[in-house]
Amino acid sequence: MKKNLLVAQSGGPTAAINATLAGVIDAAIKSGSIDEVYGACYGIQGVLEEKFVNLTQKVDSAEKRDMLSRTPAAALGSCRFKLKDINEDDSQYKQIIDIFYKHNIGYFIYIGGNDSMDTVYKISEYCKKNNVDDVKVIGAPKTIDNDLCGIDHCPGFGSAAKYIATVFSELEREAVVYDTKNVIIVEMMGRHAGWLTAAAALAEGTNDQVPYLIYLEERTFSIDKFIADVKEALNNHTAVMVAVSEGVHDEDGRYICEQAQDKIEKDVFGHTKLTGTGKVLEEAVRAQIGCKVRSIELNLLQRCASHVMSKIDIEESQELGAYAVKYAVEGISGQMSSLVRKDTENYQVEYTSVDIKQVANMEKKVPVEWINEEGNGVKEDMIKYLKPLVQGEISNIYVDGVPQYMLLK
Amino acid sequence: MKKNLLVAQSGGPTAAINATLAGVIDAAIKSGSIDEVYGACYGIQGVLEEKFVNLTQKVDSAEKRDMLSRTPAAALGSCRFKLKDINEDDSQYKQIIDIFYKHNIGYFIYIGGNDSMDTVYKISEYCKKNNVDDVKVIGAPKTIDNDLCGIDHCPGFGSAAKYIATVFSELEREAVVYDTKNVIIVEMMGRHAGWLTAAAALAEGTNDQVPYLIYLEERTFSIDKFIADVKEALNNHTAVMVAVSEGVHDEDGRYICEQAQDKIEKDVFGHTKLTGTGKVLEEAVRAQIGCKVRSIELNLLQRCASHVMSKIDIEESQELGAYAVKYAVEGISGQMSSLVRKDTENYQVEYTSVDIKQVANMEKKVPVEWINEEGNGVKEDMIKYLKPLVQGEISNIYVDGVPQYMLLK
Repeated sequence: MKKNLLVAQSGGPTAAINATLAGVIDAAIKSGSIDEVYGACYGIQGVLEEKFVNLTQKVDSAEKRDMLSRTPAAALGSCRFKLKDINEDDSQYKQIIDIFYKHNIGYFIYIGGNDSMDTVYKISEYCKKNNVDDVKVIGAPKTIDNDLCGIDHCPGFGSAAKYIATVFSELEREAVVYDTKNVIIVEMMGRHAGWLTAAAALAEGTNDQVPYLIYLEERTFSIDKFIADVKEALNNHTAVMVAVSEGVHDEDGRYICEQAQDKIEKDVFGHTKLTGTGKVLEEAVRAQIGCKVRSIELNLLQRCASHVMSKIDIEESQELGAYAVKYAVEGISGQMSSLVRKDTENYQVEYTSVDIKQVANMEKKVPVEWINEEGNGVKEDMIKYLKPLVQGEISNIYVDGVPQYMLLK
Repeated sequence: MKKNLLVAQSGGPTAAINATLAGVIDAAIKSGSIDEVYGACYGIQGVLEEKFVNLTQKVDSAEKRDMLSRTPAAALGSCRFKLKDINEDDSQYKQIIDIFYKHNIGYFIYIGGNDSMDTVYKISEYCKKNNVDDVKVIGAPKTIDNDLCGIDHCPGFGSAAKYIATVFSELEREAVVYDTKNVIIVEMMGRHAGWLTAAAALAEGTNDQVPYLIYLEERTFSIDKFIADVKEALNNHTAVMVAVSEGVHDEDGRYICEQAQDKIEKDVFGHTKLTGTGKVLEEAVRAQIGCKVRSIELNLLQRCASHVMSKIDIEESQELGAYAVKYAVEGISGQMSSLVRKDTENYQVEYTSVDIKQVANMEKKVPVEWINEEGNGVKEDMIKYLKPLVQGEISNIYVDGVPQYMLLK
């Protein structure tokens, strides 16, 4: 008897996470080895609550899977839910396996980032320890942060990088519109890695010779050095574009934005919520340089901009979903579908899988050798890495002038 | 002997202002009545400084004019420069006319908003009073604010409205991604008119049934009423989308954002610079409701988003540039090219011209009868007005994954 497949999404939304879901559904339907494809709403939390939808029925055509691929944010809903430590209390795991058995689920695909891969790791460890070998648990990667280990780059990152490069190229046109010295500061997401911020470099020099100052969280940040950099750039130019990671910090590890916040909130994973870095720098420029200055926080816009996506990113995201299904059907468990860059000159990838332990709870930072000596820009190696990831354009589907999406829950 | 045409751009940038410039260049080249097309850099300030570029040479193909049409922000540069009162000191006007004569300029097209139309009005008045009848001065409209009188809707507004509707539809997907009560507040530009904010209504209900609360500056705003509205909406829904004009104010005319700013800056036209309305409301929700809340200020992004433009807006913008040339060549002066909506059911426009006095320094607000009784949403008449303006998609030109623009200065 054929088994069913359960898929869920977790962590922060991206423009590409539904492309991976579409890849999972498509591959599962075409595999011939799977009965029904179920989706759990709101991640592992929805698994525990048995909030299931039948995706074989809901997404029953190539057109619907295409529309799903162009829908931003997790269509099944997401969660930030940490499973209990197996050694302290394994009741949640027992419950999950019971639910899997109840619904004849032989394959569980979890699409998410490093916290979500922790969930995959724990469930697969529980299965191993308890000899549950008729449920295959596979992770499928996604995160705009691009900080997953065990993979060349993360699905969702290419589209976010393209959005950021596009926004920078547009804002640069704004920066030179008046014949007045001015600074535009844009703050990007990326809790502990500067990948998204580095993407601004793709816009640098493509149209104008406006100088860019790019500060990644991988290097110690000093407001004094920043002000000196801006002053120097303004000596020879009307405008300066500044890209800054929300997570930049001083040498004591103190976030720059902490200066602006009375209270730093923490999410359930213990991560500090960061906002206001750009605002702090805007105030510093106004006070210490006195020229016109604006700060823009890209906020949620950068992770859900399905109206400007990287075609290569969407295609790879679909493939990583399809490969997750392939591995599960082959009997592999406790792995994440992944890709390796085979050829750096003529961009080409090869799909593979990696042990989930290599991914769970780990963070891949920007290599320091890709950052310039001054700590205010990136080197050519970074551009070479980024450039292939933003190739090609794909957008959401407009009906009567506004975007139309695929809804699942 | 044929005369030359001088064109300049003024006021805040839009995604469509270069489409109007492309329309001017195209029509001037094709008219057969014009020798060279010059562009003045940085608006009227550049005219006074004789900062001219030859556009007949620089934009010498249909391909270049197409790329110019898809380039955001004023490619010639812009200014916020107020000419002196003619009755007090007319030296600037004398200087302008001398420069026109020196360069054999018989036609001057000024592309801009209501402040820029004040410049057109003053120069044409000076010409009339001083019998300068061999220089024809014509305005071509643009403003994302959509607050120009004498025209059904403004070039640039349709694209900004489409961008806003797109962003709202994407953020709505974000709002429903977690099974947690939450509020997303988006603050739009629009100093004294709520048109841009109203555009959020285009996204409402097109995908999901997430409630929208839309606050235009045309109605008195109360934080207490806002909190009550949000509470009520959250009673039956997980998420609420809030669209708010930067210019909303209490019954004493006090801007909401003034509560957050120590110092309100004013620009050279005496307008108060507004920021922080969304942030104030975010803090109010956090303090008084306590649910998850985010505020996003669209800032410059909404006026330069050339990666998601309304096709109809770009086409109309080009036409309004072309008609400005037509009127000038016909010997008309002191008018602005304009359009009238001929058929509201089957959208159709007719091009015309209006006396510049009807436009200069005037502001067109959203009709109060298009706002609902509660003051937290718009009526069907508003949707009917907006819908045709966002039809069709056109984007910037991507080369090697990033936008490529037409630079002129």
